[in-house]
Amino acid sequence: MEKLDDLHQQEVFFSEEERQGLYKTVFNRRDVRGQFKPDPVPDDVLSRILHAAHHAPSVGFMQPWNFVIVRSGEVKKRVHSAFVEANDAAANMFDEQDKEKGETYRSLKLEGILESPINICITCDRSRTGPVVVGRTAIKTMDLYSSVCAVQNLWLAARAEGIGVGWVSIIKQKALQDALGMPAKIVPVAYLCVGYVSHFYEKPELETAGWLDRESLDELLYFDQWGNQKNSEDDSLVSQVIEDRALPYRW
Amino acid sequence: MEKLDDLHQQEVFFSEEERQGLYKTVFNRRDVRGQFKPDPVPDDVLSRILHAAHHAPSVGFMQPWNFVIVRSGEVKKRVHSAFVEANDAAANMFDEQDKEKGETYRSLKLEGILESPINICITCDRSRTGPVVVGRTAIKTMDLYSSVCAVQNLWLAARAEGIGVGWVSIIKQKALQDALGMPAKIVPVAYLCVGYVSHFYEKPELETAGWLDRESLDELLYFDQWGNQKNSEDDSLVSQVIEDRALPYRW
Repeated sequence: MEKLDDLHQQEVFFSEEERQGLYKTVFNRRDVRGQFKPDPVPDDVLSRILHAAHHAPSVGFMQPWNFVIVRSGEVKKRVHSAFVEANDAAANMFDEQDKEKGETYRSLKLEGILESPINICITCDRSRTGPVVVGRTAIKTMDLYSSVCAVQNLWLAARAEGIGVGWVSIIKQKALQDALGMPAKIVPVAYLCVGYVSHFYEKPELETAGWLDRESLDELLYFDQWGNQKNSEDDSLVSQVIEDRALPYRW
Repeated sequence: MEKLDDLHQQEVFFSEEERQGLYKTVFNRRDVRGQFKPDPVPDDVLSRILHAAHHAPSVGFMQPWNFVIVRSGEVKKRVHSAFVEANDAAANMFDEQDKEKGETYRSLKLEGILESPINICITCDRSRTGPVVVGRTAIKTMDLYSSVCAVQNLWLAARAEGIGVGWVSIIKQKALQDALGMPAKIVPVAYLCVGYVSHFYEKPELETAGWLDRESLDELLYFDQWGNQKNSEDDSLVSQVIEDRALPYRW
């Protein structure tokens, strides 16, 4: 078995253009809220991005996910109502901190539930393969993390297909479970709006809106111990990281 | 601003080969435990995969991650000891369920901490941008999920570079924090072993070992409501998904 696997894998190499495709996808992926077009997503495209999600890593190979494909306008409306409720509560939280932040918050478009042709809820069934799971014995959240990896795979595959995805996280878990008829034991990890878009933004919308700046990667690097930073004279990796700051804008 | 962004993005299109590069990466990514080679990872490659991680989606653009680059043999040994302790505890849990499962578990190679030239811990600083975060008001775990997206970006970029990554999750959070000198408030979301490999397996090791089978994607799909399955006669997406089962093996 191992010999055959070896032979197969020796043939899997990546051309420069294929590798570039991966980076282009990563750097141009956006959280889409307001640019959805009603054009239907063809089955073959949707199937590919779902297969990409299904091939995410999962702890103990438990594949804890399901994919709830939402096309019904009525169901979308229920989910949207749950969003509106949670979003009002969120705006009030910002008000309490700072009236101006509250106003800016209210001006942000944060979901495209009704405009996008398809919504997909990616879930986690924490009991799928029994109580003891390889790799989940010490860190209990590993199964939720597996479903998040499926989200990211789907998001990237969609971007490479020219399809936008927006993650709606401003929604109470119980309200989302109710809207989708989901048992309490199933965790709805992500509710995604999916569809073709008029355009993708160059930068994340919260960055463009001046809400927060992009952190400098070199300042987020520590070496061997927490808090142990190095500068470009101490460590050639740091100088390379600084040099590569323009990477995402080279395409 | 929006006009300029539009112009920029109209130019970002994906060739067939670039899109194929994304899928090839997704389908050929493996959790690597036993095939690491000691060859150093060049700075330019490491820098690119770190930039890919840094361009993951993050809730409220909080970018809650740091990257602790571990090259020190002494630090690796401490982390490895923490793994051994947690792994013994895990083996006992499987014993309690089923002696045979316990034996199989002990035969699995589950980490490459000491053999891989670089380990990277990706963390989450939950208080990075203050107590109220756009998109984290209803679901408190969204910041942890952002760091998981960074893990998946790094994992895919590494695969496209021919580099293997293994996620070591069999380790107590406190023990890992201690080994890396990390404050209690920082969550070490993932501890990754990173390096070139002798080969990548065709399939996940737990699948090859017969621990669990790959689920059929079509059976994981629900429509509009939890539990509402369709067959290929009811829904053309289902028949497409079944037809595409061979997708991951076409490269």
